[in-house]
Amino acid sequence: MKYRYSARLQESDYSQGMLQGWCGGEGLLPLAGELPATEDWLPPQVISQAAKQVLASESFMAGDMEGQGYRPLREQLCIPLAAAGIDAAPEQLLVMPGPRAALELCMKVLTDPGETVLVERPASAEALQVIRMNNLRAADVACDEEGMLLDAAEQLLKTRKPRLVYVMPDFGSPSSRIWSLERRRGLVELCRRYEVPIIEDGSYRDLLGDSGTSYPALHALAEDKDQVLYTGTYARTWLPGIGAAWIAASPELITVMASVTGEEEQRGHMLHQLLLHQLLMNDVLERHSRERAERFRSRMQLAEQLLRTNGSPGLAWHSRDGGLFMWLELPEGLDGEALQRAALMKGAAIAPGARFYAESPVRSRARLTVAGVNEQQLAAGIEGLVEAVSEFTARS
Amino acid sequence: MKYRYSARLQESDYSQGMLQGWCGGEGLLPLAGELPATEDWLPPQVISQAAKQVLASESFMAGDMEGQGYRPLREQLCIPLAAAGIDAAPEQLLVMPGPRAALELCMKVLTDPGETVLVERPASAEALQVIRMNNLRAADVACDEEGMLLDAAEQLLKTRKPRLVYVMPDFGSPSSRIWSLERRRGLVELCRRYEVPIIEDGSYRDLLGDSGTSYPALHALAEDKDQVLYTGTYARTWLPGIGAAWIAASPELITVMASVTGEEEQRGHMLHQLLLHQLLMNDVLERHSRERAERFRSRMQLAEQLLRTNGSPGLAWHSRDGGLFMWLELPEGLDGEALQRAALMKGAAIAPGARFYAESPVRSRARLTVAGVNEQQLAAGIEGLVEAVSEFTARS
Repeated sequence: MKYRYSARLQESDYSQGMLQGWCGGEGLLPLAGELPATEDWLPPQVISQAAKQVLASESFMAGDMEGQGYRPLREQLCIPLAAAGIDAAPEQLLVMPGPRAALELCMKVLTDPGETVLVERPASAEALQVIRMNNLRAADVACDEEGMLLDAAEQLLKTRKPRLVYVMPDFGSPSSRIWSLERRRGLVELCRRYEVPIIEDGSYRDLLGDSGTSYPALHALAEDKDQVLYTGTYARTWLPGIGAAWIAASPELITVMASVTGEEEQRGHMLHQLLLHQLLMNDVLERHSRERAERFRSRMQLAEQLLRTNGSPGLAWHSRDGGLFMWLELPEGLDGEALQRAALMKGAAIAPGARFYAESPVRSRARLTVAGVNEQQLAAGIEGLVEAVSEFTARS
Repeated sequence: MKYRYSARLQESDYSQGMLQGWCGGEGLLPLAGELPATEDWLPPQVISQAAKQVLASESFMAGDMEGQGYRPLREQLCIPLAAAGIDAAPEQLLVMPGPRAALELCMKVLTDPGETVLVERPASAEALQVIRMNNLRAADVACDEEGMLLDAAEQLLKTRKPRLVYVMPDFGSPSSRIWSLERRRGLVELCRRYEVPIIEDGSYRDLLGDSGTSYPALHALAEDKDQVLYTGTYARTWLPGIGAAWIAASPELITVMASVTGEEEQRGHMLHQLLLHQLLMNDVLERHSRERAERFRSRMQLAEQLLRTNGSPGLAWHSRDGGLFMWLELPEGLDGEALQRAALMKGAAIAPGARFYAESPVRSRARLTVAGVNEQQLAAGIEGLVEAVSEFTARS
């Protein structure tokens, strides 16, 4: 039987080729993925310890589950959320099996097929995929180092009449920029006026650590707390093996979303919820998060230094105070996919830039997951990358 | 801010009220849910044991993950699948975080908004919800005790031009019927002719145990293996806390589906995959499954006996050789929702029948999760139910 695939698959450029090319294979330096290096994850013995504590209770499988997730976990999650300025009671939280599922649910509940979602330019390739797979259109707003340009955002709010705005204001993929306070306030105010809800993806917010450049979440800045749906997770930073994510929103919206997911479905990731709860109780995440945020900051500095020392012919980037990603501007005429192929030959996997654009992609861009490798590997990866770029510039 | 909810939420009758009413609260006998009684789940000490084995490896978090899921788990899953007549290599399997996510992915990849999915009449309320939440239409095919009526199915294949057919041929919700061999072969042949793929939901297939009434899966009967997508899980029978599910399909389709989910997403339920793999290695699931299938068979017999002894004024049902559910026909004029309210007053939660219909619901039906309680609770629950029905029939 020949399958007739969904039309949305053609629109999405998540092809098999990309998947293989990106994440690289055996022996490649993984500068293309979405995760930090394995050695930066929460250490296995810390997880083991928490798991033993969870398993010590005979009734762990029949825990106190509700439609919004394991209640003691939601209670614990309120503490780091409050530290981020997000004032949410357990009733305003819904636990989900992963950050992608959380984003999908927000979209399912608040959009209809064919509608438009405003995103940053460039934006997370994964979020763009979720938008397309839900038959929505992504429209991108011009951005600079401080976030969305407010005039451009207002123009699109007027003309494209989006149903939602999706942003990642803290170390967002692919650029790792941190939005300024003025842009945060500005977007919240604009969306209030045009009555468009904001989904704020806080996946990388805990990478801020004790950094000086830390501003309140949009959720914390909104006077009308119903206006911003905040999504959080540790799965993209320290805990890739425990995908749990959470949505903070108004009690009304959480109730509607919980009725769509259901209690049985919540039970299906019970063990992960119990483990995350125990880890929060053991107070290991915060300390780990501070240490690693610091480590990623110095790795980012090292990357810059390596690029400068190695010559970096025609490469440009913006300095970042941490995060996972460096967003590279390639020499004129060098296509990100061509560089990806050349870098693979040098043993490094990088992510070509075109996939991070909702509309009219800029092809001379690439994303480097600087936090995806340790310092030694980083040096080797950047050396290979610079070689690949130099060969191109020498030819042209 | 007043939210404008998605139009699909209005179409779906999964309201907050239903969620609360169904699953019941503190002290209610849970004859309404989707899961067996807690004491029938895989015992916590068996899970603990497997967890300890998993955690003993220092590198458990950085396991051998691929875009289709943990490879050793897929290799292990081939064994019970082969026992069910499903001949699938690890490359033909995709692991998903839960059965609902598995169903959603099949639909996302093979349908476009507004298209039609053929389902059984009545059909799983959860599957109907997934269909609606993905902006698809469900059209139902008349069924008898042996499965879909083939003439009716052909008629709808011609007139409604469905993009997919979704069936649960073994102990499916809500009726727990087991399709006859003739109907299995018939549907496979029809769908081959009309070139419509079948999603076969095998969630409850392992409840067949060593029962005499066990027929091959549709997937096993199809000559063209690309024709049937088989989904399996233990989350609805023995392992509600480990939601993992799997899809068996052609290598081509699995590759496309894996490119949509991605490797990072797979890592998000790594620990559950490791645990399930260990449980399969420990060979505890099959033994447990046989024991519990036997127990549910006798519980179903007990339910019938109790209904007969208690008088069951005007109630009708079909005898079932196991499964979780009994599908009740209520006395003429008695609405399932009215009975639900009356039964709640007697301390028992039951599921009203109207929600199990894609089109023109029959209101005088109800689903009883007979396996959701132990024998003693079953007696009390049925007593309450019969009282509630009797009060109605006495009045009318």
